[in-house]
Amino acid sequence: MPIRIFVTGGTFDKEYNELAGTLFFKETHLPEMLSLGRCKLPVEITTLMLLDSLEMVDDHRSQIVNQCRSAKENRIIITHGTDTMGLTARVLGTTDIGKTIVLTGAMVPYKFGSSDGLFNLGSAIGLAQTLPAGVYIAMNGRYFNWDNVRKNKSTGEFEERTAGVTGS
Amino acid sequence: MPIRIFVTGGTFDKEYNELAGTLFFKETHLPEMLSLGRCKLPVEITTLMLLDSLEMVDDHRSQIVNQCRSAKENRIIITHGTDTMGLTARVLGTTDIGKTIVLTGAMVPYKFGSSDGLFNLGSAIGLAQTLPAGVYIAMNGRYFNWDNVRKNKSTGEFEERTAGVTGS
Amino acid sequence: MPIRIFVTGGTFDKEYNELAGTLFFKETHLPEMLSLGRCKLPVEITTLMLLDSLEMVDDHRSQIVNQCRSAKENRIIITHGTDTMGLTARVLGTTDIGKTIVLTGAMVPYKFGSSDGLFNLGSAIGLAQTLPAGVYIAMNGRYFNWDNVRKNKSTGEFEERTAGVTGS
Amino acid sequence: MPIRIFVTGGTFDKEYNELAGTLFFKETHLPEMLSLGRCKLPVEITTLMLLDSLEMVDDHRSQIVNQCRSAKENRIIITHGTDTMGLTARVLGTTDIGKTIVLTGAMVPYKFGSSDGLFNLGSAIGLAQTLPAGVYIAMNGRYFNWDNVRKNKSTGEFEERTAGVTGS
Repeated sequence: MPIRIFVTGGTFDKEYNELAGTLFFKETHLPEMLSLGRCKLPVEITTLMLLDSLEMVDDHRSQIVNQCRSAKENRIIITHGTDTMGLTARVLGTTDIGKTIVLTGAMVPYKFGSSDGLFNLGSAIGLAQTLPAGVYIAMNGRYFNWDNVRKNKSTGEFEERTAGVTGS
Repeated sequence: MPIRIFVTGGTFDKEYNELAGTLFFKETHLPEMLSLGRCKLPVEITTLMLLDSLEMVDDHRSQIVNQCRSAKENRIIITHGTDTMGLTARVLGTTDIGKTIVLTGAMVPYKFGSSDGLFNLGSAIGLAQTLPAGVYIAMNGRYFNWDNVRKNKSTGEFEERTAGVTGS
Repeated sequence: MPIRIFVTGGTFDKEYNELAGTLFFKETHLPEMLSLGRCKLPVEITTLMLLDSLEMVDDHRSQIVNQCRSAKENRIIITHGTDTMGLTARVLGTTDIGKTIVLTGAMVPYKFGSSDGLFNLGSAIGLAQTLPAGVYIAMNGRYFNWDNVRKNKSTGEFEERTAGVTGS
Repeated sequence: MPIRIFVTGGTFDKEYNELAGTLFFKETHLPEMLSLGRCKLPVEITTLMLLDSLEMVDDHRSQIVNQCRSAKENRIIITHGTDTMGLTARVLGTTDIGKTIVLTGAMVPYKFGSSDGLFNLGSAIGLAQTLPAGVYIAMNGRYFNWDNVRKNKSTGEFEERTAGVTGS
């Protein structure tokens, strides 16, 4: 059951520029992370972009939708910044793609030692193999349907939008 | 969907004794790992034993079976040494428990920095929420049914017992 | 031979704010670092300020000079941001304090896993015990007199100001 | 002031064999550690042996003495297991070599994430540049003359042999 991983950037892949003292993107750490996890699942990794998700515009999301649609795999993981992960999930969810798509990310860069990224990636790998067609966010050890999830800005955690209430 | 985690030891939880220069068990790192992963799923952790899985005998496996049966949760993760993980999975699989049970472990101790443990734990957390009742091993980014898995001793990786062949 | 450590901030002590995605100061990591190094030398740690060294002004440097002068110890380490470490060394060097003062810092935050901070701190601890009275910078495994050092902005490394040339 | 580093093994350079679950030597991590420390001091690294220091015999120590004597550098660091570091220091100290020789090591392997090795190496680098000719042990942020040092087996720390008492 081969899986496609689309990299879009996010905190996951940020690094520290020791000359400037700032955070930046150089390249994705996905291969290194899968190697650390001794992952032997057949995966294809494609870097679509390396962006802070606050900088994503409609064109970027259209590109993601098109890539998910044209990929030959039916099971897809998208690594994504957490700030607008919900929005990209919504764009994908309201498009009829008919595949299992799992978005995941991290609160702390993988390179910083105390990252949640490796845990989240493992979780997404497990979920992408087992969930039925649909669009999901995998964060905080949980998974959420695209139409019932939000990032709580004060805690940094993902939670149900409705919190047990029907409607919105 | 609360999950029960039974800790039995294994490389996962080994530490380095700097006075003796040897590996030993002190306590489980599961709470620390779930915290690092920002896991917000309701989980109950119970340490059943802290053993190198080569030291496990029938009584230990009976204890694990009994605990799985009497747990109030229907979804269970067992952390376990990799050497006899397949055997414990077989004992659980040939018992009619009717729950989703996922065994996982690590090739390198969590405390050693380059461990696959956090990735495997994330994977097991994802799978335990989505797989139907049955007994599975989650390693190497993959999952295996209890009756078709073995650890390849020369590579350290888990693989299908039948390797594409029908029957066994 | 007790040593006083004055903490002023710098990259050494920066952390990642996972909600804002920015770097900030919370508290010094010096005690944690000395513990990791199994340091048994008697040291007294005092946090004077927690600043990016680009934000230091004359008043901060006067405070550092006064603290060095009034400290009861004759051997002092100052942790400091690298950008203006040379300037603070100069202010200290042109004041007649009569103690061994070693400034050190880091190019990568200690919390980020790949930091040079622990190495630099070890180096400074060794040098502070052995160098005669004077003001020095300990970086890159080397030590420099306050009147012959600069940070090379393109490499991030400290080097002699005169680079083999007499006078300036 | 070029420095020679002689590698003899010790906990410093031990790694985890994930197939056997045991500790072993593969190669020295000194170049990686110096790179992490952004060390720009001219150093020459020579691996003499990779041994647990409990396995060292007289021949090994003779080899170390000969190498120190014939090295063109006058300042030498020796990485060494802590268990018999004092004995090797004594053999070197009772030989008239006339150079600055600093032995150092680690209580936890460098690869295990929580090692004191990087701190100790930084300390030894600082001390090797500043101490007069003699044989020293650099551990726990301190330095000791070869004729007044022992490893406290219950704490794992190095301390003066005489502990404030005259004579021995």
